[in-house]
Amino acid sequence: MKIKIIGTGLYLPPKIETSKETAEFIGENENWIISKTGVMERRRSDIDVDKMGAIAASMALEDNSVPDLIINASGVPKQSIPDTSVFFQKELGLNNIPCFSIHGTCLSFLIAVNNATSLINTGVYERILIISADRGTIGRNPKEPESAALLGDGAAAILMERGESKNYHYWKMNTWSEGANLTEVRGGGTNLHPQDPKTKDEDNLFSMDGPAIYKIARKRAYKMVQKTFKSVEFEKSDVAWVIPHQASEKGVSAYHEYGGFDKNKIINIVSKTGNCVSASMPMAFVTAVQDGRIQRGDLLYFIGTGAGLSMACTLLSY
Amino acid sequence: MKIKIIGTGLYLPPKIETSKETAEFIGENENWIISKTGVMERRRSDIDVDKMGAIAASMALEDNSVPDLIINASGVPKQSIPDTSVFFQKELGLNNIPCFSIHGTCLSFLIAVNNATSLINTGVYERILIISADRGTIGRNPKEPESAALLGDGAAAILMERGESKNYHYWKMNTWSEGANLTEVRGGGTNLHPQDPKTKDEDNLFSMDGPAIYKIARKRAYKMVQKTFKSVEFEKSDVAWVIPHQASEKGVSAYHEYGGFDKNKIINIVSKTGNCVSASMPMAFVTAVQDGRIQRGDLLYFIGTGAGLSMACTLLSY
Repeated sequence: MKIKIIGTGLYLPPKIETSKETAEFIGENENWIISKTGVMERRRSDIDVDKMGAIAASMALEDNSVPDLIINASGVPKQSIPDTSVFFQKELGLNNIPCFSIHGTCLSFLIAVNNATSLINTGVYERILIISADRGTIGRNPKEPESAALLGDGAAAILMERGESKNYHYWKMNTWSEGANLTEVRGGGTNLHPQDPKTKDEDNLFSMDGPAIYKIARKRAYKMVQKTFKSVEFEKSDVAWVIPHQASEKGVSAYHEYGGFDKNKIINIVSKTGNCVSASMPMAFVTAVQDGRIQRGDLLYFIGTGAGLSMACTLLSY
Repeated sequence: MKIKIIGTGLYLPPKIETSKETAEFIGENENWIISKTGVMERRRSDIDVDKMGAIAASMALEDNSVPDLIINASGVPKQSIPDTSVFFQKELGLNNIPCFSIHGTCLSFLIAVNNATSLINTGVYERILIISADRGTIGRNPKEPESAALLGDGAAAILMERGESKNYHYWKMNTWSEGANLTEVRGGGTNLHPQDPKTKDEDNLFSMDGPAIYKIARKRAYKMVQKTFKSVEFEKSDVAWVIPHQASEKGVSAYHEYGGFDKNKIINIVSKTGNCVSASMPMAFVTAVQDGRIQRGDLLYFIGTGAGLSMACTLLSY
């Protein structure tokens, strides 16, 4: 299929929370956080996800025409109803543009890109705006220091059109529901409704068995990488940039240590932003576009894990 | 594009709540409910959305091969993380099938069908299972009797493949974010997080300005119908069945009174099920397939409104 990413935008909340500050909140010390997660600092947003996403989206829309579809691809919504995409539209000062959400936790962005690629290549839509905005710091559970130390806030957006030549080379996703309980926020829906007297405080907060996920994910990511380069006409060495989900320093480094990619070809922003849920991957991408590392024509390999346990990857020429 | 719906499934919770019973809960009388909403009875589920959806999906999968993608298209999730689709996969006893959610409140099902159509027609997936399961009775606010009287529980599912000939004739969606606050559950996300001391009980419950929505939606639905039949080679009279979102008796009847369709061509299950959020439209569809009204080759017109305010329609030959 043929796609072109014609606009990119990023929003980094101005307020920096250092790992020294996070350490106080979770009752650990700074060095423990840095050695466990690799996160030196993360951003904490004072504005809600709709405003965060709209700032990133405005940047992506600059010098471009208005989109004919807006997809929200965030990890957690602004509110249950209506959909967050509606609030993005409103914040952007737009009206009468169809919008909806695609949700696959940390993989929402990549799944949205894949759906948008099919929608554009079948002529259903011409210009699709995808926005990921996450405010994970709200859901941090201080009693789970490792996951609480990881989470940060941020937003990113891209604008996509049909491209001139075949450049969307590969897409693969897997979900192993045996891992459904490894990463959870058990509240917020019908299961442990906020009104349910059985719902405990921690049910509304983020809970993750990081080591268990890493153990499963490492092997499966390895297999996914192997399968990708058996299925396409490219070699691993043709990849200009690997853009992984910024799960943790260990999670990002694994694509070098076990995935076989050069360390300096892997976009790694985790030490400065933490894990920003679904916004992490597009934030890493847009950062490297804006600082000039990613150039037109570069072969990009997006890959990551998400609660589920899910894993997905996309190989495309930028 | 070419699609074929090869399997359908429905789950109606066994427990019936009559409008006499609902009347006690909301402090009104049975006749008030029936005259305002047209709902005589609705179902109330004792099992959660994942189990409800899996029962409907099992029926859709009967005699068919396993899907290569599962899309959850419900109004409200089971929990914030992971995605409800993962729990559907688990309940179905499946593993290693990619899955994610598409969310556009009451239009989630129709948006999912449109995304699935593009994914199938670009060869990304072959056999897609779409599941809508909603348990609106959990979110009823007795202090808002009109919306509380409407909501019911239910689930439906379809299995889609590529078809032999062009049969997906038209898709249109609009979202007017000026109507963002007409239908809301303000809690459940980052806006009024369950842990936020500012979050009030009613923020976690369904709130809708039905008359205001009806006023706006009636005119816009009329325009959408007009535009549809200006854009396709079919006449309105070619439509075998109109399958509207089951918003309310008034909402369904409007497609006859103002939309110009024969009353007996409109699938209307609202008196027996209430408004089942995103599950309403596929429940109406599957009901009419299972009772033999909808036959292969029939021209079907799906149309409805959703919180946003959004409106969408699809014209396809079954």
